[in-house]
Amino acid sequence: MQTTSIKLLTVVTESVLAERLTRAIKAAGATGYTVTPAKGCGSRNQRSSSIGGDNVQIEVLATEDLAAHLLDMLVRDWFPHYALVAWLTTVEVVRGEKYAGSLPAHP
Amino acid sequence: MQTTSIKLLTVVTESVLAERLTRAIKAAGATGYTVTPAKGCGSRNQRSSSIGGDNVQIEVLATEDLAAHLLDMLVRDWFPHYALVAWLTTVEVVRGEKYAGSLPAHP
Amino acid sequence: MQTTSIKLLTVVTESVLAERLTRAIKAAGATGYTVTPAKGCGSRNQRSSSIGGDNVQIEVLATEDLAAHLLDMLVRDWFPHYALVAWLTTVEVVRGEKYAGSLPAHP
Repeated sequence: MQTTSIKLLTVVTESVLAERLTRAIKAAGATGYTVTPAKGCGSRNQRSSSIGGDNVQIEVLATEDLAAHLLDMLVRDWFPHYALVAWLTTVEVVRGEKYAGSLPAHP
Repeated sequence: MQTTSIKLLTVVTESVLAERLTRAIKAAGATGYTVTPAKGCGSRNQRSSSIGGDNVQIEVLATEDLAAHLLDMLVRDWFPHYALVAWLTTVEVVRGEKYAGSLPAHP
Repeated sequence: MQTTSIKLLTVVTESVLAERLTRAIKAAGATGYTVTPAKGCGSRNQRSSSIGGDNVQIEVLATEDLAAHLLDMLVRDWFPHYALVAWLTTVEVVRGEKYAGSLPAHP
């Protein structure tokens, strides 16, 4: 089976932010995402509700370019204001071209 | 601590398919799996319920051979008919031999 | 965007153990974790409730040293007694120094 290396972006944040954040992720070019309910206890204490509170884990498959673009967006627009943890994992998929999304012309 | 590289197969699909799919995964040789409830919004629109609907995320630890066998099964029997996203991640475990499963003699 | 490679430790176990295990993970130096509810069916049958029972998936971002320390702790104190599956994934984060935790002086 021929596979392609792409990126999995995982973001953990407060559940109250899930809708806004997934909207921002789609607006930034992602074609899909998965949201899982979670509880968390984090190292960043900007929001008291982030300590043991209701979180979500958002996962997005993306090409390397799109993943970098999404991470830039998170670091610029979200990290300064919200309790957010994000990481990239290299994964293999069967049809990598599906996850190219539609990158803005001038990201 | 001595670790071994094996594969983590992750499948996201509609929750109504969870039972049939995990049965197929076990029949294909996997020794265990984890199922997590999720919400999703995907790039494949074969099923209307895949847009914002109830999904599950199924994770299976498997040796490289078993993971390839499981991926082949998904691509052959599931991808043509269902809204399904799957990816492989290389992970490290303490005792890799546990995850060899029981590959059919003639896969 | 400058990223750093660190480890993601994932542990799947029975939900009744979640609180004790996350306490042990924090005591071992981790600065945060995410807990996701899951159902599982595993290859280890020490506990009958591990077959199709209520599980949790615990995820911890950690530097390589802290991850090795956490894995040692699991293998020494938890694997002999409980139904537990654990794996390490290499992931990239924006600020790796956040996940160094506070390793005990004599681990």
